[in-house]
Amino acid sequence: MGLMTAEQYEESLRKLDLVVYQSGKRVKNVPDDPIIRPSMLAVAKTYELAHQAEYADIMTATSHISGDRINRFTHIHQNVDDLVKKSRMGRLLGRETGCCFQRCVGMDALNALSIVTYSLDEKKGTSYHDRFIKYLEYVQHNDLTCDGAMTDAKGDRSLPPSRQPDPDAYLHVVRETPDGIVVRGAKAHQTGAVNSHEIIVLPTLNMRAEDRAYAVSFALPSDTEGIVYIIGRQSCDTRKLEAGVMDRGNRFFGGHEALVVFEDVFVPWERVFMNGEYEFTGRLVENFAGYHRQSYACKVGVGDVLIGAAQTVAEYNGVEKAAHIRDKIVEMNHLNETLYCGCIACASQGHREAGGTYLVDILLANVHKHNITRFPYEIARIAQDIAGGLMVTLPSEQDLRSPETAKWLQKYLKTRTDVPTEHRLRILRLIENLTLGSAAVGYLTESLHGAGSPQAQRVMISRQVNMAQKQAAAKKLCGIEPP
Amino acid sequence: MGLMTAEQYEESLRKLDLVVYQSGKRVKNVPDDPIIRPSMLAVAKTYELAHQAEYADIMTATSHISGDRINRFTHIHQNVDDLVKKSRMGRLLGRETGCCFQRCVGMDALNALSIVTYSLDEKKGTSYHDRFIKYLEYVQHNDLTCDGAMTDAKGDRSLPPSRQPDPDAYLHVVRETPDGIVVRGAKAHQTGAVNSHEIIVLPTLNMRAEDRAYAVSFALPSDTEGIVYIIGRQSCDTRKLEAGVMDRGNRFFGGHEALVVFEDVFVPWERVFMNGEYEFTGRLVENFAGYHRQSYACKVGVGDVLIGAAQTVAEYNGVEKAAHIRDKIVEMNHLNETLYCGCIACASQGHREAGGTYLVDILLANVHKHNITRFPYEIARIAQDIAGGLMVTLPSEQDLRSPETAKWLQKYLKTRTDVPTEHRLRILRLIENLTLGSAAVGYLTESLHGAGSPQAQRVMISRQVNMAQKQAAAKKLCGIEPP
Amino acid sequence: MGLMTAEQYEESLRKLDLVVYQSGKRVKNVPDDPIIRPSMLAVAKTYELAHQAEYADIMTATSHISGDRINRFTHIHQNVDDLVKKSRMGRLLGRETGCCFQRCVGMDALNALSIVTYSLDEKKGTSYHDRFIKYLEYVQHNDLTCDGAMTDAKGDRSLPPSRQPDPDAYLHVVRETPDGIVVRGAKAHQTGAVNSHEIIVLPTLNMRAEDRAYAVSFALPSDTEGIVYIIGRQSCDTRKLEAGVMDRGNRFFGGHEALVVFEDVFVPWERVFMNGEYEFTGRLVENFAGYHRQSYACKVGVGDVLIGAAQTVAEYNGVEKAAHIRDKIVEMNHLNETLYCGCIACASQGHREAGGTYLVDILLANVHKHNITRFPYEIARIAQDIAGGLMVTLPSEQDLRSPETAKWLQKYLKTRTDVPTEHRLRILRLIENLTLGSAAVGYLTESLHGAGSPQAQRVMISRQVNMAQKQAAAKKLCGIEPP
Amino acid sequence: MGLMTAEQYEESLRKLDLVVYQSGKRVKNVPDDPIIRPSMLAVAKTYELAHQAEYADIMTATSHISGDRINRFTHIHQNVDDLVKKSRMGRLLGRETGCCFQRCVGMDALNALSIVTYSLDEKKGTSYHDRFIKYLEYVQHNDLTCDGAMTDAKGDRSLPPSRQPDPDAYLHVVRETPDGIVVRGAKAHQTGAVNSHEIIVLPTLNMRAEDRAYAVSFALPSDTEGIVYIIGRQSCDTRKLEAGVMDRGNRFFGGHEALVVFEDVFVPWERVFMNGEYEFTGRLVENFAGYHRQSYACKVGVGDVLIGAAQTVAEYNGVEKAAHIRDKIVEMNHLNETLYCGCIACASQGHREAGGTYLVDILLANVHKHNITRFPYEIARIAQDIAGGLMVTLPSEQDLRSPETAKWLQKYLKTRTDVPTEHRLRILRLIENLTLGSAAVGYLTESLHGAGSPQAQRVMISRQVNMAQKQAAAKKLCGIEPP
Repeated sequence: MGLMTAEQYEESLRKLDLVVYQSGKRVKNVPDDPIIRPSMLAVAKTYELAHQAEYADIMTATSHISGDRINRFTHIHQNVDDLVKKSRMGRLLGRETGCCFQRCVGMDALNALSIVTYSLDEKKGTSYHDRFIKYLEYVQHNDLTCDGAMTDAKGDRSLPPSRQPDPDAYLHVVRETPDGIVVRGAKAHQTGAVNSHEIIVLPTLNMRAEDRAYAVSFALPSDTEGIVYIIGRQSCDTRKLEAGVMDRGNRFFGGHEALVVFEDVFVPWERVFMNGEYEFTGRLVENFAGYHRQSYACKVGVGDVLIGAAQTVAEYNGVEKAAHIRDKIVEMNHLNETLYCGCIACASQGHREAGGTYLVDILLANVHKHNITRFPYEIARIAQDIAGGLMVTLPSEQDLRSPETAKWLQKYLKTRTDVPTEHRLRILRLIENLTLGSAAVGYLTESLHGAGSPQAQRVMISRQVNMAQKQAAAKKLCGIEPP
Repeated sequence: MGLMTAEQYEESLRKLDLVVYQSGKRVKNVPDDPIIRPSMLAVAKTYELAHQAEYADIMTATSHISGDRINRFTHIHQNVDDLVKKSRMGRLLGRETGCCFQRCVGMDALNALSIVTYSLDEKKGTSYHDRFIKYLEYVQHNDLTCDGAMTDAKGDRSLPPSRQPDPDAYLHVVRETPDGIVVRGAKAHQTGAVNSHEIIVLPTLNMRAEDRAYAVSFALPSDTEGIVYIIGRQSCDTRKLEAGVMDRGNRFFGGHEALVVFEDVFVPWERVFMNGEYEFTGRLVENFAGYHRQSYACKVGVGDVLIGAAQTVAEYNGVEKAAHIRDKIVEMNHLNETLYCGCIACASQGHREAGGTYLVDILLANVHKHNITRFPYEIARIAQDIAGGLMVTLPSEQDLRSPETAKWLQKYLKTRTDVPTEHRLRILRLIENLTLGSAAVGYLTESLHGAGSPQAQRVMISRQVNMAQKQAAAKKLCGIEPP
Repeated sequence: MGLMTAEQYEESLRKLDLVVYQSGKRVKNVPDDPIIRPSMLAVAKTYELAHQAEYADIMTATSHISGDRINRFTHIHQNVDDLVKKSRMGRLLGRETGCCFQRCVGMDALNALSIVTYSLDEKKGTSYHDRFIKYLEYVQHNDLTCDGAMTDAKGDRSLPPSRQPDPDAYLHVVRETPDGIVVRGAKAHQTGAVNSHEIIVLPTLNMRAEDRAYAVSFALPSDTEGIVYIIGRQSCDTRKLEAGVMDRGNRFFGGHEALVVFEDVFVPWERVFMNGEYEFTGRLVENFAGYHRQSYACKVGVGDVLIGAAQTVAEYNGVEKAAHIRDKIVEMNHLNETLYCGCIACASQGHREAGGTYLVDILLANVHKHNITRFPYEIARIAQDIAGGLMVTLPSEQDLRSPETAKWLQKYLKTRTDVPTEHRLRILRLIENLTLGSAAVGYLTESLHGAGSPQAQRVMISRQVNMAQKQAAAKKLCGIEPP
Repeated sequence: MGLMTAEQYEESLRKLDLVVYQSGKRVKNVPDDPIIRPSMLAVAKTYELAHQAEYADIMTATSHISGDRINRFTHIHQNVDDLVKKSRMGRLLGRETGCCFQRCVGMDALNALSIVTYSLDEKKGTSYHDRFIKYLEYVQHNDLTCDGAMTDAKGDRSLPPSRQPDPDAYLHVVRETPDGIVVRGAKAHQTGAVNSHEIIVLPTLNMRAEDRAYAVSFALPSDTEGIVYIIGRQSCDTRKLEAGVMDRGNRFFGGHEALVVFEDVFVPWERVFMNGEYEFTGRLVENFAGYHRQSYACKVGVGDVLIGAAQTVAEYNGVEKAAHIRDKIVEMNHLNETLYCGCIACASQGHREAGGTYLVDILLANVHKHNITRFPYEIARIAQDIAGGLMVTLPSEQDLRSPETAKWLQKYLKTRTDVPTEHRLRILRLIENLTLGSAAVGYLTESLHGAGSPQAQRVMISRQVNMAQKQAAAKKLCGIEPP
């Protein structure tokens, strides 16, 4: 089949029979729902760009299974160059959409499973890897979008899965049948869930023997019976329901998250990639987290948009040559490129795992993501500084269109004579969207918590650094002899 | 008459005949408009607390004119203690409302005019101060809320007022009549404008001789003919139109800003406090800015709310004893109390101006405000860190109330058994409100730009520090003799 | 007797028979020792300025016991104004000396004892306060400098005093006699110890019943038999031994710290202010720490010197008008004045304790000190940025004086024709002194650890904030009803 | 000849007849001078490690000219892998020496000349590149250390070279002879100058036509007649003259800088690589700066030492398990690894220049260096926090050895019973060395100014980012059509 077009992607979604709730009601037509549609269009961009010659090298790859040209989002990284291109692809799409384009989490789940199913089979003599490769062929051949579902509801944070008052606080196997398993639970914060053809489930943390039923991984079509999606709301979400698109800031794209409920859902054996092998959960979590922390390369692209918007509004206000404005633009760029260094470095220091899949440097991927939890906030603060207060006191597009008030807004919100007032307002709405509005959910809060909250990275950094080597170096230099 | 109650205040607003536009339409009933009402209720809190015995010392003062007990928001500071109490009042009301309560700007305008009209008369033999005192008596006697309107539209930022392509880019006197002056222009970003009885206009920057027509200050009833208010929109503003109040975060209070247009508005002489004396504009701007930068004491109170919310959600999530959570709460408090130090210090180092009005230390007031442009952003980031990602993926109140989805939300968003799920969701919505929603407009963006953008404070800090003293000290210590 | 002059102070030190070690040898003539003398001269400045009319209001006070005019360093704070003047005095002396002037710790010990001995007597019916007042009269009458000795050696940090392998790890009472007590132990990091007439000992932490022997406070003449001082070394200390003073940076002043050993030292009863009342150690520590954290007002004055030096070197290099240089100077000032806000605010929010002594606001004093652990490092970094690399690659004064090399240095280190090359070098050495040299010990590392390390302040901030009030405010606003 | 050993290197230096001044006197025996020797030993480490099998891949390379195995410090980068290994070599040597090992600047000068002489010849038909390649063969064959001398004295910063009051403020050609050129001027801040066999001179900034005489580049043996070295002094430099090595902190290694004066020095034509081609100065400066900013990879290695020391002192103090200590260690590592990401990223994104030499990504190299101007200061502050105040109040090694005082120091500076007191003191001295002492010169101040001060990087970042692309992305998303 090969690479889908954006249009084919949209058509393919219409064929799904998803159970989606939003604002207390069942959503009838998912791809056309005005809240969800911008999110779908962002995913569609991953299909569209794969057909453009200038991006072919970044957006596509050669399948190591079929030898076909495939979308990179379905590719298993075969070398360091693949890892670096993944980071560049993230930045590209962030810049093109100005939001979360949602398709990386499935890619990261596939790559993590590629490594761990291989190791699992090696150690245990199971055949998960074969199953996985067959599934992968299917995904690659049909150019599918996969959701990667990890975060459980978690209930009481002080208790492990098996000791929760509600056993469903973590997704688990309820029973086995000759044909497969039945699972129950929920996965929270699922980015892009209702724009996906497939949902790949992974355990959320390192399980112990008593949590064996929770050590489960599998993939299902997104419209499998028993799966329910409840859409979360975002800052300024309902602006998408208003007449006019100016107040959205980003005219085209957005994101969404959903709570995904599994109500005793059946998974056939050929779709099960882990079932009780709790000793491998830690590695699966760690590898997925490593890949997914690299994926925050996308925020560099969103940062590009915000920097471009800040420069533009400075020009519209006629202050772009003021020394302090120029310095602030430099600072935004410096922070944004520091983030870029992180996602490039962890890729370029990647290595081959048993089985042939390439994995990022885990320490540097965590360091990268940890900076992502900090710098976008400062970049956003500077953008608001440059934008000026009008960003939050600007009347609505309706006021701009109203014959009663348009004259005053056109007159008093005018700056340079060669800049249409409306252009100034549009760029301010974009900055609002990225720093307070629905894109701020992705650029800021998701940067904090996506792929693990800051403390998760700190724990990993602590584990990954070679402290013994550093202490030995220090002791040698000041003359403390080893005992 | 004495101190109005909150109810009397609301009634008094109903008597005004304001011309207010919002979402492209004229607002019929201003105090009951669902977008505006929370903002009115925040102002009402300044009336309500003045009647509570425990806050009497902070919220009220003795008029130096009438000797009556008056609301502190109408008081002219008579000593350092008044200045300190103003800072404490700001924190109190910020904590009580969790938003901008809008009434400080009028107080700051009154105090700045008190100083400058006195000096102006002394130097020029005019009688502005007498007029001002009569106006002040009226405000104090009737316990009025005044808007202080300073920021002009400004047009092309590279040109002074008198050389703008559109002469109305800055508000100015169009003509004089035997009875008064006629003015045209607009004031932007007017916090609390439509909740005010009076609007006090000040020039926006230091004027030169050729800008004489722009050196104008006056006060008018807010419903004077020719004044038009266009309400600005805020992040998440339309949640106030939804059924249910949970998704607002702050159930009761909010803020608003408006663009205020003056369409050839007549001002009688007894309401004119400056008319062409451009040499005094610099001082008026500086004094007003000094007072108003102190007023950002309020953000310390809003910070209290956000810290309280963060601590609460940590407890609801059962992680309040984790070392990193405790440390983050300390950091939030440390930053918030550092801000408090600023507004207290500039007040306690205040001094008496000629005429008897007490003025804050201008250097420290600018330093205080400058920290306000930074720390709330970091406090907000930490609050989001503690809150967790659910803050931005949480389904709507309608989903929580819907019989179809309520069961899943109640089940899967539950944490500790003793915490009602809804409590967790409410506190998350409050944090969303303060860090991304409509209160973020006040807590973050207004903290940046209100009372002057960061660069304005840097210019003032540069001017106010005694660099000669510092250089002399350095040279003496290293043996560089004065020439 | 009244206020000593600087000369009388120096003479008084000559009469002491201190046992001081340095560089492995007994120091014969303490005030003339080249390493120690600059430190003595810094203390002498506290005497000198008290005689200058322009500083009389800040540097002196009226004794509440004798009614005499006394040096403020021996004064018990009688009102908020005294507390504020103490902060201003610290800044003044920091600016005059560019280093630690060492006399505040004794003042803080006296004030803390004033409060706690009063409370102790009230609760226990003891007569410590009378003893203390008599001692205070003696100190005030003779204008003495007191060391305040708190920090014990501490041994194994995981064990309390009474369970240490070496019982002397904390100073303690070895035995009582009819005439007094005998103590053993050591106090570390004693700033200004060998420039003091008196040494006042306080416990280092909150003691429990089993640590009763460690709950001891007393005062002794600094040359009491059994007290030994071992001087610590500082960065660049031996530059004070070199010919020429240019490379010292600060030609006149410096600081020192000493380890003070008590080898079974006898204390007569009239000098004992606590002996076993462990329940009062916590409060004594907290009050002393509160006062002493306020005392870091001095670093604002040292900051003034560093800012003055940075501005001067920028002028010498001819770059003072560059936008980025001006902006960096503003940032230094902003940070420095933020620190000033802290020491002013904790003073102005002070209150009267039982007994009449005024105490700073403990929360704000901790917040102030905590900023002191951060901002001087950033100010120092900026100063080095402005200074340029020559600060650390500059040849020695000997090279500048050598006929062989002087010509090259004069030629190639010249910048503007109107600036003597040597002036440029002197100011660079001052910046080196303050950011890497002996004054950096005081400006940086002591700012971190003096009056308690950062974590000590964080613990206090955590304890002092009213979290219940903040949580109640948050819950009310989002509609969480109290149970 | 091949790779020199460390011993051969030392011997080779003894054969040089350098004119070196220090402390106002001519240095007789350079390699044995106690101030200089630790610096020489640090360079020697670059020879020593090249012979160790475990580091062969990093420390050596295959010459693209001769095909011989050569020290990487003399290598011209042939691919991206070479660039990445250069970064890893920097970190390795920083960790091994704990200071500046001085040899990278020559490597960076060679690589920059390799690119620019090639382009110059292409454009101008000159034969500089051939000369350069012959010179390179000589350097590679003899495994020489080269100083790369760029920074001129600069005189009045507001004037270009040709308009300086003193024409020698920038190094320039005084006259040409049939055999070569004669140059005069000085190069400042020359790291490792007196440990070098060769000195390679580059222009310090982009020259214009009128500055043609200043557009000069050449290489000379370091002991050429007319070259004079005046050693700069560092914080705590004279501790190297004291008995005992403990107080040095770093027992073995150090750094040095020198002012290098050229008194009408003759350069034969075959050693001249640029002579008047001012149009190529900008590129030479930019390429050299790009390479050299990458070279600050070394500070990551020094950071490793400081982190190792901080962890060790925490263990010695028995507080390594305290949550705040662990968190601080994580923060140090996070910042240090963020720096590592920078030097890896700019290498991995390198590209081939015409002529075949690989150049780093200039934008990312500047971003990397800019972080180097910030993070080491924060890492150093945290290290001092963990170390505790004793780091600056510790008596001297002489006190520790003195029979009079040793007993007290051993007793009272003891912490855990299993830690020798002296070990604790040694590690504290190392932290002092790195944060205040002679290594702080390299780790902090040189990190600020070496390879260009912070503002130089900001200018380059501003120039290198693709702002048009960012603005186009922003405008497209908010619907601003291109004109």
